[in-house]
Amino acid sequence: MPFTELHCHTLREWGRHNYKPYGMACYGKTASQDMINLVSIIVDGEEELIKKPRLLGVYNPTSPLLQTKILLNGLFIFAKYNQPLLISSAASAGSTSPVTLAGTLVQTNMEVLSAIVLTQLINPGTPVLYGSTNTIMDPTNGNPAYGSIEFSLITIASAQLAHYYNIPSKGSGALTDSKCFDVQNGFERFMTLYCAASAGHNFITCAGTYETLLSESFELLIIDDEMAGIIKRGLKGISVTKETLALDQIRKVATEKKNYLMLKHTVKNTRKEIFVPKLVNREKRGIWRKNGAKDIITVAKERVDEILETQKGPDLSSNIEKQIAKYTQIVTSRSLEDYIKLEGIDNSKGTIDVAGVKIE
Amino acid sequence: MPFTELHCHTLREWGRHNYKPYGMACYGKTASQDMINLVSIIVDGEEELIKKPRLLGVYNPTSPLLQTKILLNGLFIFAKYNQPLLISSAASAGSTSPVTLAGTLVQTNMEVLSAIVLTQLINPGTPVLYGSTNTIMDPTNGNPAYGSIEFSLITIASAQLAHYYNIPSKGSGALTDSKCFDVQNGFERFMTLYCAASAGHNFITCAGTYETLLSESFELLIIDDEMAGIIKRGLKGISVTKETLALDQIRKVATEKKNYLMLKHTVKNTRKEIFVPKLVNREKRGIWRKNGAKDIITVAKERVDEILETQKGPDLSSNIEKQIAKYTQIVTSRSLEDYIKLEGIDNSKGTIDVAGVKIE
Repeated sequence: MPFTELHCHTLREWGRHNYKPYGMACYGKTASQDMINLVSIIVDGEEELIKKPRLLGVYNPTSPLLQTKILLNGLFIFAKYNQPLLISSAASAGSTSPVTLAGTLVQTNMEVLSAIVLTQLINPGTPVLYGSTNTIMDPTNGNPAYGSIEFSLITIASAQLAHYYNIPSKGSGALTDSKCFDVQNGFERFMTLYCAASAGHNFITCAGTYETLLSESFELLIIDDEMAGIIKRGLKGISVTKETLALDQIRKVATEKKNYLMLKHTVKNTRKEIFVPKLVNREKRGIWRKNGAKDIITVAKERVDEILETQKGPDLSSNIEKQIAKYTQIVTSRSLEDYIKLEGIDNSKGTIDVAGVKIE
Repeated sequence: MPFTELHCHTLREWGRHNYKPYGMACYGKTASQDMINLVSIIVDGEEELIKKPRLLGVYNPTSPLLQTKILLNGLFIFAKYNQPLLISSAASAGSTSPVTLAGTLVQTNMEVLSAIVLTQLINPGTPVLYGSTNTIMDPTNGNPAYGSIEFSLITIASAQLAHYYNIPSKGSGALTDSKCFDVQNGFERFMTLYCAASAGHNFITCAGTYETLLSESFELLIIDDEMAGIIKRGLKGISVTKETLALDQIRKVATEKKNYLMLKHTVKNTRKEIFVPKLVNREKRGIWRKNGAKDIITVAKERVDEILETQKGPDLSSNIEKQIAKYTQIVTSRSLEDYIKLEGIDNSKGTIDVAGVKIE
């Protein structure tokens, strides 16, 4: 499938199967306008879409310090139609930003804020998210390391910057550089998700991914859902009240030869205090073996199969399907040359400096 | 091997192979005195051992609110010889302590503090660690869940209590309830280790374990060492100085068409800013496949083999070996009945109430 049609097919499937808002890169004014038009067909008109935004435009400045013309073209469309824009640099410290994490934050902060300012000039009040997909370059092989602790530190600091500016923020979590379902995969995805969540990011992307964002797995998506529940319980912390301090209960057990399993206090508070995970295995080895000695991916796979079998999407009416099919013809009939012409891209200088030589 | 001899063989192997201090449960005055005697042989005398403690006595109150006689017997010996004591309850919220985490902290705080007070009455100044091995009972199967977020919350809170009392503290980390080397194993062990470390515990136990502490793996031990490095980098945070903010470097790249890979600033700061893990894989899939598509356990196994082949322990002189062999004969000639008699255990009431009926 040519990438110039990708958005079209993706949004049709989104309309058929999904109840939630959806995000795509605002890749050019042509594709972005297509997205607005397609989603307008699905949600019954532009007016409804503007009133109740369903699309999220993902806009990445190009580090260091560039805003590319094609993405700016798309940003204009999303802002015009009041769809939220997620502005997020994806710098690699040591390669496309300073190797020092503080320096990476300074540079990408400029990149993100300048794009946010643009959205407000285009359409004041356009909803935006202050994002970070910044990480370090692994010094041994030059690859971006998304499963690194430095990635997590940058994620935490970017939430703090967003809070400082009072802008809702986006971090990435559940990332790993592992290419398989191993212990590395598990600990890196928890680390990045926990750090993003505990830093207070409003929106956290990348669940289900592995291989430095290049792969996606349904099983991991289900596991990340469970990890999100675990972390949510963690962020609730420990409730300290007369009821939870339970001095009277401790006295009862100490003086009346009762045990905690018998107490009403236990029944009453178990659900409030204890998060019960669905995939994690806490059985003794004998029982675990008897039940097939399954690892968590195997258990998640069973849940995935169940969901795929039973869950139904909203589906689209035949009328909407017809309109989308018609629109799809327009998109598929465009050549890459048409596309380039429509975007007004001069291949020799496709970028605009943010700071350029004027930086002080 | 009868458990009444275990400490003897363990400490001999410790002496042969280990350069670090070692901890064992202070299981009775007989075994504890054996431990003191054996280690004294190894380190050249009681006086040296008292001056520079090498043994850590692990003392667990029995929740709810009991101190068992046999462990108290051992606690007396360790305190007398000035060896540090790790005092740590292992309550299971909902079963042996209140289901509310705050209530579990109240009860186990009493258990730990009362035992600590005892150590100071026996020998003022005895070094102690305020510990927590408390967790929740999984409500679905009744097992203690050491890989749970509630375990981590209790671990964090117990560090705060220890800080409040200004007593060095012990938490547990790298725990999991998984029975295999899967994604659950990875994320639970990171969660528990990260929480224990970031809460500021002075001493963190349980590296290398899985299956709710029932199993130990060399490969996991090596992975936990790497995770410790990662977390240590995390706790260092982000250094914010003129050098790390790197405004001059950003300006250079923006105005002089330089890139960060070329800058001295990058070379100079890479090692300071970036932690380079040894086991984690960050290669692209093609290279990873070409190198055998190894998961992290396989990589760790190679490192384990290398360590076992090359690392040498301190070994013991033939004179010390002879003395230990002689002492071992004393220990192995004891029957279980001898042991019970030596401890003065009356089977009908082997425990002492801490709070008993006097609790107000």
